[in-house]
Amino acid sequence: MREDYDPEDAAAWAARLGAADVAAAAERIARSVVHTPTLRCPRLDALAEAPVELFLKAENMQRIGAFKARGAMHAVGRLEPEQRARGIITFSSGNHAQAVALAAREFGVQARIAMPVDAPAVKLAVVRELGAQVVLAGTSSDHRKAAALELQAQTGGTIIEPFDHPDIVCGQGTATAELIAAAGGSLDAIVVPVGGGGVIAGACLAARGVAEDRRPRIFSVEPAGCDALAASLEAGARVDVPPGPTLADGLKPVRVGALNFEIARRDLAGSFRVDDEALGRALVQVLARAKVLVEPSGAAGVAVALGQARALREAVGVEDRPLRVGVILTGGNVDPKLVAKLIEQWSAQA
Amino acid sequence: MREDYDPEDAAAWAARLGAADVAAAAERIARSVVHTPTLRCPRLDALAEAPVELFLKAENMQRIGAFKARGAMHAVGRLEPEQRARGIITFSSGNHAQAVALAAREFGVQARIAMPVDAPAVKLAVVRELGAQVVLAGTSSDHRKAAALELQAQTGGTIIEPFDHPDIVCGQGTATAELIAAAGGSLDAIVVPVGGGGVIAGACLAARGVAEDRRPRIFSVEPAGCDALAASLEAGARVDVPPGPTLADGLKPVRVGALNFEIARRDLAGSFRVDDEALGRALVQVLARAKVLVEPSGAAGVAVALGQARALREAVGVEDRPLRVGVILTGGNVDPKLVAKLIEQWSAQA
Repeated sequence: MREDYDPEDAAAWAARLGAADVAAAAERIARSVVHTPTLRCPRLDALAEAPVELFLKAENMQRIGAFKARGAMHAVGRLEPEQRARGIITFSSGNHAQAVALAAREFGVQARIAMPVDAPAVKLAVVRELGAQVVLAGTSSDHRKAAALELQAQTGGTIIEPFDHPDIVCGQGTATAELIAAAGGSLDAIVVPVGGGGVIAGACLAARGVAEDRRPRIFSVEPAGCDALAASLEAGARVDVPPGPTLADGLKPVRVGALNFEIARRDLAGSFRVDDEALGRALVQVLARAKVLVEPSGAAGVAVALGQARALREAVGVEDRPLRVGVILTGGNVDPKLVAKLIEQWSAQA
Repeated sequence: MREDYDPEDAAAWAARLGAADVAAAAERIARSVVHTPTLRCPRLDALAEAPVELFLKAENMQRIGAFKARGAMHAVGRLEPEQRARGIITFSSGNHAQAVALAAREFGVQARIAMPVDAPAVKLAVVRELGAQVVLAGTSSDHRKAAALELQAQTGGTIIEPFDHPDIVCGQGTATAELIAAAGGSLDAIVVPVGGGGVIAGACLAARGVAEDRRPRIFSVEPAGCDALAASLEAGARVDVPPGPTLADGLKPVRVGALNFEIARRDLAGSFRVDDEALGRALVQVLARAKVLVEPSGAAGVAVALGQARALREAVGVEDRPLRVGVILTGGNVDPKLVAKLIEQWSAQA
């Protein structure tokens, strides 16, 4: 049964949720998602400015090429038959649209998805191929959300939020739970890219399952200029940050989710920012050394773990051994032409 | 203890070796190599000309970026202390040189490696960084082998063959043993790229451990014009094939190993050939869909499983369901500039 969540109660939810909720989500979605590998690559570690051992959670190999499949499968799977009958609705320009369309197909539910009029043809095609109905709506996130609310009024369907909902957060948290288990419970830190904050909130919940003295510290990473979470944490309340330009098109929310902010403010150990140079370089380093393709958003954690390793080690307080850092490679959906361009630009440093 | 192998006795060895020898090798090298993931990617399967389900054994994520680490660790690990004291010798232009250098470092043995005078600077640097002594010797495989024999006469060291030795074959076979296990013993076929034939001979041995009625059929793939194994099987004896030009620089032997040929002629279900177009396209398809980077040699199995799926299904005799095909992604060591070029060329078909 779907959690009955109201953002007004976000703080209470943030206090109440925990690793058991993530474990329950993992059990529910086990047959619908890929248990992605956790990769080690000492030759990638060697590029860090200070000693680290990276554990790469390869969500780029998840269904639809991104962790979003986890939350969508979980949220759609928890709907009651009468909710399913009225269909589901969402709004997204990217991976969440594909994830919801896929989940809808798996559960035999009609999906209606508001997407921007300037969405790439290939993204529209994938969503339609999965059987979802696309409603084109303006160019901004506000346009899309308004269109989704209109669809809800017309159909009585259920909106599947992109990130601000306990079902989504617990679904995304399963990636971190698998990462912690794969690393034998021995991680010092986990660096998580933040868009709306679903995956980092889930990471915090998953980490609550580890005894406090061994619990990995959770750090956020956002593109410089798209730092809605870091700005909110600094302000002590959710603030809007109109996103500046960034290679990381998956990390451009105007604001983070209410629940996600409340969880992050309780649990987060610190925040990092990365620029486009660091993202492009990290993408090519991961490709050349670990042999996996990530989207720029997915390279953000690696950019911190390699390029800001000293600050990370200092924040955790490890001095006498390599820092064991988990990194969520959040997705791999990137325009191949951009990959070719970044290789030309950065392969000498890979 | 190292197997005392003479190529004259290859046929007897081919009859005697089996899955138990591969299992013993797996136990010996378990702590020295990566148990690489076996990946599924339905969106990659969808590109095949007939229904297949691919199981991708990601040896591109192996140490030194190729399966060669397995055989080298096994062969060097089996040397007696007095053999180790005299050092080891090999000849290679590519991944085997790195693999032997790595194994030598792990076991504290001096390695001397004959490499071509025109070897890329980066390959020489990697081998030297691992502590091996490089001896530059001409441009052909015969030059390198002569230099290795001279080093052996001088030092009394042991030559670690690139592919024609039971220790190497059993070491490489561990990749296929892991693949078969990861697929739950349910594979119909495995497609293996062939250079000197070490990995395919090992694949045959690993498959001998599966009951005959469920045993996966093993198929070879070679670049058109570099088909020393297929030509030898057709001739009924090992023949030389001076290699023509190919993108697959790892699959250019003049002849396959004696042991490897004898195993292949007993066990192989068929042979395939692929051209550069098929290799380049498959490399980009694997990158764009499965999100992993392979070298052209490593894409050869995928090129067959997707582009020659009808012939493969027919050879196995499966009609009423998708063919379950294991593919060894043999390595991921590829010049990033070539990757950028291939993306430009093939991304529209990925």
